[in-house]
Amino acid sequence: MSAMAGGKRSVEEHAAHVAKLLAAVRSGTRVRIPLSRALHRALAESLDAPIDLPPFRNSQMDGYAVDSASVATVPVTLTVRGVLAAGDGRAEHEPGTALKIMTGAPIPDGADAIVPVEDTEADKRAGTVTVHRTAPAGAYVREAGSDIRTGDPLLPAGTVLAARHIAALAAVGVTDVFVHARPRVAVISTGSELVPAGDALAPGKIYNSNGPALAASAIANGADVVSIDHSDDDPDGFAEMLAHAVAVADVVFTSGGVSRGDFEVVKDTLEPRGGEFLSVAMQPGGPQGTAVVDGIPVLAFPGNPVSALVSFEMFARPALREASGLPAVEYEDRPLTRDLTSISGKRQLLRGRRDGTGVAPASGHGSHLVAGMATADVLIDIPADTTSLKTGDLVKVIPL
Amino acid sequence: MSAMAGGKRSVEEHAAHVAKLLAAVRSGTRVRIPLSRALHRALAESLDAPIDLPPFRNSQMDGYAVDSASVATVPVTLTVRGVLAAGDGRAEHEPGTALKIMTGAPIPDGADAIVPVEDTEADKRAGTVTVHRTAPAGAYVREAGSDIRTGDPLLPAGTVLAARHIAALAAVGVTDVFVHARPRVAVISTGSELVPAGDALAPGKIYNSNGPALAASAIANGADVVSIDHSDDDPDGFAEMLAHAVAVADVVFTSGGVSRGDFEVVKDTLEPRGGEFLSVAMQPGGPQGTAVVDGIPVLAFPGNPVSALVSFEMFARPALREASGLPAVEYEDRPLTRDLTSISGKRQLLRGRRDGTGVAPASGHGSHLVAGMATADVLIDIPADTTSLKTGDLVKVIPL
Repeated sequence: MSAMAGGKRSVEEHAAHVAKLLAAVRSGTRVRIPLSRALHRALAESLDAPIDLPPFRNSQMDGYAVDSASVATVPVTLTVRGVLAAGDGRAEHEPGTALKIMTGAPIPDGADAIVPVEDTEADKRAGTVTVHRTAPAGAYVREAGSDIRTGDPLLPAGTVLAARHIAALAAVGVTDVFVHARPRVAVISTGSELVPAGDALAPGKIYNSNGPALAASAIANGADVVSIDHSDDDPDGFAEMLAHAVAVADVVFTSGGVSRGDFEVVKDTLEPRGGEFLSVAMQPGGPQGTAVVDGIPVLAFPGNPVSALVSFEMFARPALREASGLPAVEYEDRPLTRDLTSISGKRQLLRGRRDGTGVAPASGHGSHLVAGMATADVLIDIPADTTSLKTGDLVKVIPL
Repeated sequence: MSAMAGGKRSVEEHAAHVAKLLAAVRSGTRVRIPLSRALHRALAESLDAPIDLPPFRNSQMDGYAVDSASVATVPVTLTVRGVLAAGDGRAEHEPGTALKIMTGAPIPDGADAIVPVEDTEADKRAGTVTVHRTAPAGAYVREAGSDIRTGDPLLPAGTVLAARHIAALAAVGVTDVFVHARPRVAVISTGSELVPAGDALAPGKIYNSNGPALAASAIANGADVVSIDHSDDDPDGFAEMLAHAVAVADVVFTSGGVSRGDFEVVKDTLEPRGGEFLSVAMQPGGPQGTAVVDGIPVLAFPGNPVSALVSFEMFARPALREASGLPAVEYEDRPLTRDLTSISGKRQLLRGRRDGTGVAPASGHGSHLVAGMATADVLIDIPADTTSLKTGDLVKVIPL
């Protein structure tokens, strides 16, 4: 793949540039939160077991605690000296007798085996139990630390907490954990043609889809959206929204106003403040801008809705996932289920749909085809120097 | 697989029984929510496009709106009559002239092509533009409805809404959508041996992991947890919590108190009220209970933490996902990377770990091995009549 295809910046170069810009976001901060709110968050610390599990030797069965020597020959009838319930404290075993014991109750000191209740016959009036099956030392005894020992690694940093991890953490008494903070995101869509949903569409107007879509994309990738604004093409209004955005967010995404028209509010505002606006050799999503305002990175995406979403996927998603500790999206190699052609000099990100083990384009090329994009579940990533692919050729596929 | 392995109810039979019990939960209700909160929710209606997209014929490029006949021979110099920005209303084209036009602006009536700004040279002083490349009729024109037409299907019911679906819905002006309601879940863990995290562990006590783990499992599968309680083995206290749970929830999950010990608070409370307590031919998770209290289904899971989580996966997860409109978890077939043996007569659900394309057991058999379970990412499902499997044999694997 040429680094500067057609004199433009390559996707790889721009991605590297953006990654550098977002380094502060990506390095992430960690926050301590209660375990009850930690589901699906990424652990920002490695945790060792603070206690043994089980914390004490206990019974695996409802039955009778005995010394194995007393039940070496069966049947044998033993005096039952009492009952140990789960939750009871320590007790003493008297050799040659039995204590009725419930699952999870501590093994009495001196006992070394459990006879399950199924292998016994109790005589409550006589206060005895007849044991019908031998129990070797250790039978149905859960040793302290047999699951995990104090100090042993419990969960590595980076674990995205599922229910089974919550279970393990709760079992060792953890009340709260350090997790990766969610990066705070502000979204500003721009364009005088956009009206909010709910309003009537005057001639020449369209509904604002970039604001809701970029916000949803950010949330889906581990971020908190702390501000959503919409600006028309008035620079003063946009500058005011931007000042608010950089005051509350770790990163700002804008849509629209980055191209070569006469009313490019984002470019016109940010270029004089050191912002960089350029063309990236990709389709859709060629026009891109970046800036740093009051120390906060701003990614300026194009306004066509497909371009905005594809730009997010290529440039913002990796950094947001890294910041929030989520694993990177895994690319797939899949065979095309039909032939396709691609223009030279631009990396194409076609909307595609998986079909069994294969993949095919799912929508037209136009970057305004937002309804078409909803039928896709992947981007098909065609290198800039590839112009023709045949059915069966392997392509790189980016799950959406 | 025998239906009544070892005289016990098979997993399939119990799952069918539970499914019937949870039918009311599974049928689901739908709620109308704002689009801004609909990410990851399952659409409970099919939606057709209420408008055309694009709503009007508009320009794909920054450039000049022309009639193609006027630029059939180039270079040609045309008078520029004005500028059309995105958001402007309708305009009239005068044959033989040009209107400067921005991406997304409506094509003026009478124009049929756009010449991109790159193919022109403007003379602002003279108020003209020289066109250097011909533009056939339709060039860079986005026709109204070329993405989707009014009344065409936009999203099918059941779509789990991702950012690209939010984009499409916002683009057609949808403000709120009907989604599957989250089933309301109450969790009651039981057992006098359990103490909450944060407390000191007295002898014989363990931390309550089932409450947090079942709550997390429910949330992870589309439910809202509306109540979490913990009961010791006192029947009055449990009955009170149960009355609260069935008053606020659509389904109640309990842990512990279902077996054959002397202090089985769940069984002792629910059996007299028509609850059914039985042994299912599975390991872990054999002892199971079901009841209906005040019309609300109660699933009583065993108290060992691995048993409780595996019970949830086998019996509760399918119903919760169906109720909240989430797709069923897809089982996988994977080759074992080592030999294993299994006891006859019980379906084994081993904690396993995927390794490349294969799978291997990840933890011991004991149903108390809650830290061990955290190292697993699947359950390996061994049929009740299988006692021995070799490396390379395909096994059914249930992703956790």
